[in-house]
Amino acid sequence: MGIRQERGFGSAMGESLVIGIDLGGTKVATAAADLEGSLLSKVIKPTCPERGVDAVIDTVVDSVKEAAASAGASKADIKSIGIGSPGPIDPEAGTVIFAPNLMWHNVPIVHILEGILDLPVYLENDANVAGLGEYRFGAGRDSKNMIYITVSTGVGGGLILDGKIHAGSFGMAGEVGHMTIVNDGPLCGCGNQGCLEALAAGPAIARKARACVLHGEETIMADMVSGRIEEITSKTVGEAALAGDILAKEIVDKTGEYLGIGVANLINVINPDAVVIGGGVSNMGELLLVPLRRAAGRRAIKAAFEKVRIVKAELGSDAGVVGAVCLALGGV
Amino acid sequence: MGIRQERGFGSAMGESLVIGIDLGGTKVATAAADLEGSLLSKVIKPTCPERGVDAVIDTVVDSVKEAAASAGASKADIKSIGIGSPGPIDPEAGTVIFAPNLMWHNVPIVHILEGILDLPVYLENDANVAGLGEYRFGAGRDSKNMIYITVSTGVGGGLILDGKIHAGSFGMAGEVGHMTIVNDGPLCGCGNQGCLEALAAGPAIARKARACVLHGEETIMADMVSGRIEEITSKTVGEAALAGDILAKEIVDKTGEYLGIGVANLINVINPDAVVIGGGVSNMGELLLVPLRRAAGRRAIKAAFEKVRIVKAELGSDAGVVGAVCLALGGV
Repeated sequence: MGIRQERGFGSAMGESLVIGIDLGGTKVATAAADLEGSLLSKVIKPTCPERGVDAVIDTVVDSVKEAAASAGASKADIKSIGIGSPGPIDPEAGTVIFAPNLMWHNVPIVHILEGILDLPVYLENDANVAGLGEYRFGAGRDSKNMIYITVSTGVGGGLILDGKIHAGSFGMAGEVGHMTIVNDGPLCGCGNQGCLEALAAGPAIARKARACVLHGEETIMADMVSGRIEEITSKTVGEAALAGDILAKEIVDKTGEYLGIGVANLINVINPDAVVIGGGVSNMGELLLVPLRRAAGRRAIKAAFEKVRIVKAELGSDAGVVGAVCLALGGV
Repeated sequence: MGIRQERGFGSAMGESLVIGIDLGGTKVATAAADLEGSLLSKVIKPTCPERGVDAVIDTVVDSVKEAAASAGASKADIKSIGIGSPGPIDPEAGTVIFAPNLMWHNVPIVHILEGILDLPVYLENDANVAGLGEYRFGAGRDSKNMIYITVSTGVGGGLILDGKIHAGSFGMAGEVGHMTIVNDGPLCGCGNQGCLEALAAGPAIARKARACVLHGEETIMADMVSGRIEEITSKTVGEAALAGDILAKEIVDKTGEYLGIGVANLINVINPDAVVIGGGVSNMGELLLVPLRRAAGRRAIKAAFEKVRIVKAELGSDAGVVGAVCLALGGV
């Protein structure tokens, strides 16, 4: 992967910036940053994966050039590029193995981009990259070993150990959403039963709320969606809980408890000093974190639990692009 | 911890060996090894922790001298000492924080031994050290990321990531026995419910077998202990299963399944290329590993499971002392 001793260009400015790319199924977010990691510009474009791999690559290449231009720089000023992609990916080969929401299968993105841009490109899984962002510039700064968990339509994660992404032997580490939490629990998309993702991701939260509403339980949620029960999302549940709705609070409590069991397992195995919870569902904040910490505290080894911070992510939707910048910086 | 630039002695032979110490509640195993890690001598002494910290330290110091002498060397030939101790320990401070079976509480063993022996001493948790031994010289050799799980009176573990022990932020990583496997499962010694240790360690296996025998289930196990049901151990269960006893096989299958759930969680989170199962219970071999692999395969991410070896440890009771030798070598 992309470490080059010599490159055939230079500029008066020199190599003064890096580019971070957060490649998602919906949008491509691209930022230019200086060598301290401060963002200088940001470009967001729709991914439109249905247009095919080449079109998405074109979008990425255009984004790189625009982000550099917006930062008052040219391609020659770019030192390196970091890219976070949905996974699994092979960081050594620089290949996206399989990304359903990009409709990609074995795309050698590092090779392709290095060919087009003549710059070193570093690839990692998107959750690992977002974790790296939180570790360096977000809620995990000053930690040594950090676990990042993102809870949105799925539950993903990244392990940052001793300052580096732990990608595992084949780039697949950090799949915290597929720990078994309830042995005979609901079926998960991965084929297993009772995965954390099947219990605590946004869709599971929404499904539980809808079922309770249809069952006639008392709640403000039906009114919140004007009776269109199918429009209840995890956001509805979070807002209702914040407004004091008892059913919604129970659902959030239970979600926090499931996450807390997963976090306890991770604390026992990894012994981190920080666990950072990101993703859309984490916007519920302390409403979710209080029951999460309670469950983790009951289940984790006491001495290890007492020394870990369990906190909300700070970078929001920027975590991916900031992490990709860190990847570009760290890879140099 | 213990890296010294200059030491006040030398010999014609030079610093040609290292010492590894496996400090246990029952015995202290001490080995001298050459700088390639080949064992030259081994000394085993009873620990007798009831005699107090100083007496145990004396035993350790005597063992070091005897192991060196048996290898035809003197103290001046020793380069460094590695020691695996029951934990939790603080590897930075070189302190055994708490070890019930040594009756130790905050013992600064590195400082004490360095003071007496004037040699650099490296301390790690015993399960981590045994894992390191299997990684370098046992079933995990040639792996990159390895998880070691020891199943005996408890379930412990060690993570060897990219060639190094992952001790975590506070030296407490690898407590795989305290992952929650069954949410509302049996109470564990740690205070949590449904820990892997409470379900799959030797005492849990024996308890289950005794309960079934007392319940009148058909089995050869009662005869194997001449009707003294309380003498049924996990070893009895393993032997009965090997002899074809259906009840014993069911208990071993269930134990393998619990362990498999834990292993699946670890595969998903860590993405190792090897999982090594050691400890007395692992002597059941394939009888235990077949259901373990089956459960792990059902529950782990398919691509990650397909690339991991799940194998029995190779070093047996030597894992600790071999790992301590590796610790001494690696710490130099």
